[in-house]
Amino acid sequence: MMRNILMTIEYDGSGFSGWQRQEGKRTVQAVLEEGLSKFCGTEVKIDGTSRTDRGVHALGQRASFFGDFAIPTDKLMFAVNNYLAGGMNVLNSVGDVRISNICEMPMDFHARYNAKGKHYRYIIKNSGEPDIFRRKYTYYVKDVLNVEDMRIGANAIIGTHDFKSFQASGGHERKTTVRTIFDLDISCHGEYLIIDVKGDGFLYNMVRIIVGTLVDVGRGRILPQDIENIIESRDRQRAGHTAPAEGLYLMEVYYEETQLG
Amino acid sequence: MMRNILMTIEYDGSGFSGWQRQEGKRTVQAVLEEGLSKFCGTEVKIDGTSRTDRGVHALGQRASFFGDFAIPTDKLMFAVNNYLAGGMNVLNSVGDVRISNICEMPMDFHARYNAKGKHYRYIIKNSGEPDIFRRKYTYYVKDVLNVEDMRIGANAIIGTHDFKSFQASGGHERKTTVRTIFDLDISCHGEYLIIDVKGDGFLYNMVRIIVGTLVDVGRGRILPQDIENIIESRDRQRAGHTAPAEGLYLMEVYYEETQLG
Repeated sequence: MMRNILMTIEYDGSGFSGWQRQEGKRTVQAVLEEGLSKFCGTEVKIDGTSRTDRGVHALGQRASFFGDFAIPTDKLMFAVNNYLAGGMNVLNSVGDVRISNICEMPMDFHARYNAKGKHYRYIIKNSGEPDIFRRKYTYYVKDVLNVEDMRIGANAIIGTHDFKSFQASGGHERKTTVRTIFDLDISCHGEYLIIDVKGDGFLYNMVRIIVGTLVDVGRGRILPQDIENIIESRDRQRAGHTAPAEGLYLMEVYYEETQLG
Repeated sequence: MMRNILMTIEYDGSGFSGWQRQEGKRTVQAVLEEGLSKFCGTEVKIDGTSRTDRGVHALGQRASFFGDFAIPTDKLMFAVNNYLAGGMNVLNSVGDVRISNICEMPMDFHARYNAKGKHYRYIIKNSGEPDIFRRKYTYYVKDVLNVEDMRIGANAIIGTHDFKSFQASGGHERKTTVRTIFDLDISCHGEYLIIDVKGDGFLYNMVRIIVGTLVDVGRGRILPQDIENIIESRDRQRAGHTAPAEGLYLMEVYYEETQLG
């Protein structure tokens, strides 16, 4: 009997060429499909909620797949995670991708189409010396940032807007560039700044351009009161730089509560 | 005029084939010598205090070199670090190796021969789920370890002993396998165990075998009161497993205080 499986997935993006399957590249989708196909005994094709770029991390990516196979979901998760970690005989058997949750869904559920929104987190190391152990996991900004100005800028981004100024070229075609940002919060944790962005959907590189623009506000290169004009201009040239992939984490995908029971 | 330069070096070992120069491999020594030679305008050969293995990290490695060149030490450090980080035009310009301190020494000083001892740290993630973001920086041990037993075992290791049981084959020949461990401390930090080992010198893989043996004590596979017999046996087969390189950090190299001013 056909089943519909939903997974929550976490990965360290530093060793992958992004999420999406590409010929000859190590991608998260390819590695997962290989493991799942092995233990399901049938060719599995998964559909991820977010096609994260090379170097981007995830703690709460979601993906679903259909298949006619017998193995219970908890056994499948255990077997695939063990396989992805290099097997039980490896001393330090922790891989760079794992399934953290798995469940069976009604047949009409789809991880991407049913997603109502996403939470992304961006981590900046601000002030202090560069930390060589965190270089693939944070964006090091040497200049001391004015966080109050960044918060004023962030408030102008919250809401429903046409975010064409915050879209990089190169992504797949979208019907509209209007998106709603539910929340955009900046918090300080010692030498780290954490920017949490929650919205109903995101254009190509949108979170990284929002963060780069806020960093430019924090540096005084863009005035916080100009953010409104930047949005209205619908001109990518007016917004700030694209922050690097290393600092970005997909934290959570939102669904209707009734769907996930 | 000939000068003698001493450097303190930190590196993330995950991207290197260890410290020592090897044909066709990316090693810390090779990368540093390349950068130093470039900015000194003369071929530089450095001598490191510890030939750390592939995957081992350092916060306080030391290395010295002789050379006849004009650039002031602080400018040399700045230029080499910038070069190692990929240059100023790279957005997230943090490399995986950097010089954290540099100074000029009398001509009779040598980073390795004058070293009086070293401090190594080993980090274990014990309990909790494996952390995919820390897999190259910690040793994940799923079994809950008995730390009190490990401390009893550790106390038997402190002091001057013949540590032949804790020496792997494959290192360079040593005149004696007698070493003094000044201190061996185990501390708990949430889900992490930190083992600090300080001694006058270490045999090949000695810290990793000490840690592996203590982990086996914590698991109940070796009794803490057997450590004394294991040392006396001078038999590598009697000691525990070799803990993986990923959890090991060279923290500090000790010199006579008068030498470093």
